[in-house]
Amino acid sequence: MTTLETPKLLSVLSGTRADRPPVWFMRQAGRYLPEYRELRATAPDFISFCLNPEKAAEATLQPMRRFPYDAAIVFADILLIPKALGQKVWFETGEGPKLGDLPSIESMADLAGQAGQALSAVGETLTRVRAALEPGRALIGFAGAPWTVATYMIEKGSSDRSGARTYAYEHADALDRLIAVLVTATVDYLAMQARAGAQVLKLFESWAEGLSEPLFERLVIKPHAAIVRGLRERGVTTPVIGFPRGAGGLVETYAAVVPVQGVALDTGAPAALGQTIQASKAIQGALDPLLLRAGGDALLARVDELLEQWSAGPYIFNLGHGILPDTPIAHVEAVLKRVTGA
Amino acid sequence: MTTLETPKLLSVLSGTRADRPPVWFMRQAGRYLPEYRELRATAPDFISFCLNPEKAAEATLQPMRRFPYDAAIVFADILLIPKALGQKVWFETGEGPKLGDLPSIESMADLAGQAGQALSAVGETLTRVRAALEPGRALIGFAGAPWTVATYMIEKGSSDRSGARTYAYEHADALDRLIAVLVTATVDYLAMQARAGAQVLKLFESWAEGLSEPLFERLVIKPHAAIVRGLRERGVTTPVIGFPRGAGGLVETYAAVVPVQGVALDTGAPAALGQTIQASKAIQGALDPLLLRAGGDALLARVDELLEQWSAGPYIFNLGHGILPDTPIAHVEAVLKRVTGA
Repeated sequence: MTTLETPKLLSVLSGTRADRPPVWFMRQAGRYLPEYRELRATAPDFISFCLNPEKAAEATLQPMRRFPYDAAIVFADILLIPKALGQKVWFETGEGPKLGDLPSIESMADLAGQAGQALSAVGETLTRVRAALEPGRALIGFAGAPWTVATYMIEKGSSDRSGARTYAYEHADALDRLIAVLVTATVDYLAMQARAGAQVLKLFESWAEGLSEPLFERLVIKPHAAIVRGLRERGVTTPVIGFPRGAGGLVETYAAVVPVQGVALDTGAPAALGQTIQASKAIQGALDPLLLRAGGDALLARVDELLEQWSAGPYIFNLGHGILPDTPIAHVEAVLKRVTGA
Repeated sequence: MTTLETPKLLSVLSGTRADRPPVWFMRQAGRYLPEYRELRATAPDFISFCLNPEKAAEATLQPMRRFPYDAAIVFADILLIPKALGQKVWFETGEGPKLGDLPSIESMADLAGQAGQALSAVGETLTRVRAALEPGRALIGFAGAPWTVATYMIEKGSSDRSGARTYAYEHADALDRLIAVLVTATVDYLAMQARAGAQVLKLFESWAEGLSEPLFERLVIKPHAAIVRGLRERGVTTPVIGFPRGAGGLVETYAAVVPVQGVALDTGAPAALGQTIQASKAIQGALDPLLLRAGGDALLARVDELLEQWSAGPYIFNLGHGILPDTPIAHVEAVLKRVTGA
C-alpha cells in the first residue's frame, strides 16, 4: 500500500514546488535531546561515536522519531576529513576540537582519493538510516568545505581564523595546494555518501566571514564549484546545498556562480537577497537559533515572517546556524507545528 | 601665506571629488607605534589615559607626525558613554574591558542629556589636536553606536554578543529603552565633539554581525538614523560616517536609509556593493588588517585593486577593521606611499 513518495526536500531542490516548505534544523541530532546525551555517554570519545555506524545511525534517527522533520542529516563531524588525511583529531570535554601537526602535503595528497573508503563507517551509518527512514523523508549527507576544514587543520583547533587567513596571505601556494587536496578528498567522501544512501549533500562553509572578495573567490567560490563539478564528473547527480556562512554581501555572487542546487542562508540574510537567489535556485534558512532558544511570541512571529517572505519560491525552512544545546524541546515543537501545520 | 585648504576627507564627504582618495586607518593611534606604548605607560589605567586631554591629544597626533594620514581620529574609547551613564568601566591587562552592574534605566536616562558635559575631557583633547593639526588634515570625533555599546553594557564586557541578542528577544522593551537612552547620550556626546573641533563624526557599530534583518532595523538602522537626525536638529552639520561592521547583505539597506554622508565598509565588502553605495554617498574601507600585517606583493596588489574598483567615486581609503598591534610600520608606510603617491 506504499506509494512512491518524493521527499519534499528533493522536490524543492529540483525546482518543483512542495505544498509547504520542508523543514529540518542544523544540529537537529544533538545535545538539546536528552536521549542523545544518554547515547553519547556510551562512547568513549566523540570521534569514535561518529565512526560507530550503530550509534551514529541512532543519533541521526532520534530527532526523526520525536519531531516531524522532513529530513535527517547523518550524524558525523566536519573534522573527519583531516582524520582521513592523516592528521590526528580529538575532542577535549568542554573545549573545542584539537588537531595534531599538519601532515606533509604529499602524504595528504596520497590519501585524498581514498577519503571515502577511509570514512566508510559514515556510509554504513547512511545505509542504516536510509533503511529505517520513511520514504517521504530525505536523508542528507555532508562535509565541511575546504576553507573551513583548512582553518582547523592550520590552526590545530578552533580559532578566530586570523591565523589561517594570515597563512592564506603568507603561504598562498601552500594553502592553495591544501585546498586542492581537500577538494579531491571532499569529492571522494561525498560521492561515497551518495552511493551509501544520501539523497542530498550539504557543504558547510562555517567560516566564510571576514574573507575579502578576492579570498572568498579563491577559497570558497572556486573550491565549492570544483567539488560540485567533481561530483557530476563522477556521475553523482545528488543535489548539493552550499552554506557560505557569514559571507554577507558575497552570497549573491556565490549563488550566481557556484552550481549548487540550494543555498543555505545565515541569520543575517536579508529577505530581498533570498528572493533574488530564489529566481534560480532553492534557499534554506534562516531563523536565529538564539530566538528559537528564547521562545515567546517573537519566535512564532518571526517564523511567520520567514514563511511569508520566502514561501512563494523554493524554500527550505531551517535555522541560520546550528540549534543550541540548551534549546527547550517545546520551542522546537512549536516551530515545527507552525511550519508543517501538523 | 596659508591658504584656506579644505581637507580631502571633507571634500569627499561633501560629494566633491578629491585629486586622490584621502586615507586614514582605524586604530592608527595605538599599540603598533613604539611611541604610543611609551606614552601609554605613563598613565595608570586606560580610562584615565583616554580622559587625560594632554596624553590623549599626544596619542592622537603621534601617527600624524610619522605618516601622511589625511585625518586624525581622537584617541578615546567607545566605552566612555557607559561610564558617563554611571556604569563602572575598567580594563584589565591582557583581557578585554570589564563593566559593573547595569544602572537603572531611570538613572541612566537622567544622565543621558549631560553625556557631552561628563566627557568634556574628550572635547578638550579635540580642541588641542585641532590647534596642532595642519589645516589640510581633518579631525574625526567618534562614538560607539548604541547596539554595540549596549552589548558591552548588558554582558558587562566583551563577548560573542549572544547574551545581548538573547536580551533583545527576551527583554525587548528594556533593550529598546536602553537604546533610546544611548541615542540621547550619543547625540549629546557627538554634538559636544563637533563644537570642540571634530570636523567629521564616526559611529562605530562594531557588532552588527549576526543580527537578523528585523533586529538590524530595530537596533542599528533606526538608532543610527535617530542620531544623525538628532545632530541636525541641534544644528550640528558635521558629516557623519556610519560603520555597520559585519552587516553583510544588510549594508545596502543601511546606506539607502540612514542619512549618513559616508558608509565604512568592512573587509568582506564586495566591490559592486561599494559602487552601488557610491551613487549616493561616500564609502570608506576595506583593506584586510591581516594583509596589512602580512605585507608582501599581495598587499600592494590589493591596495591597487581597491583604488581601481572604488576611486572613480567618492572613496576614503582605510582598513576593513582596526590596525593590529603587531603590524610592521614599514607596511603602513608602503601602503600610504601607494595611496598618497608621496
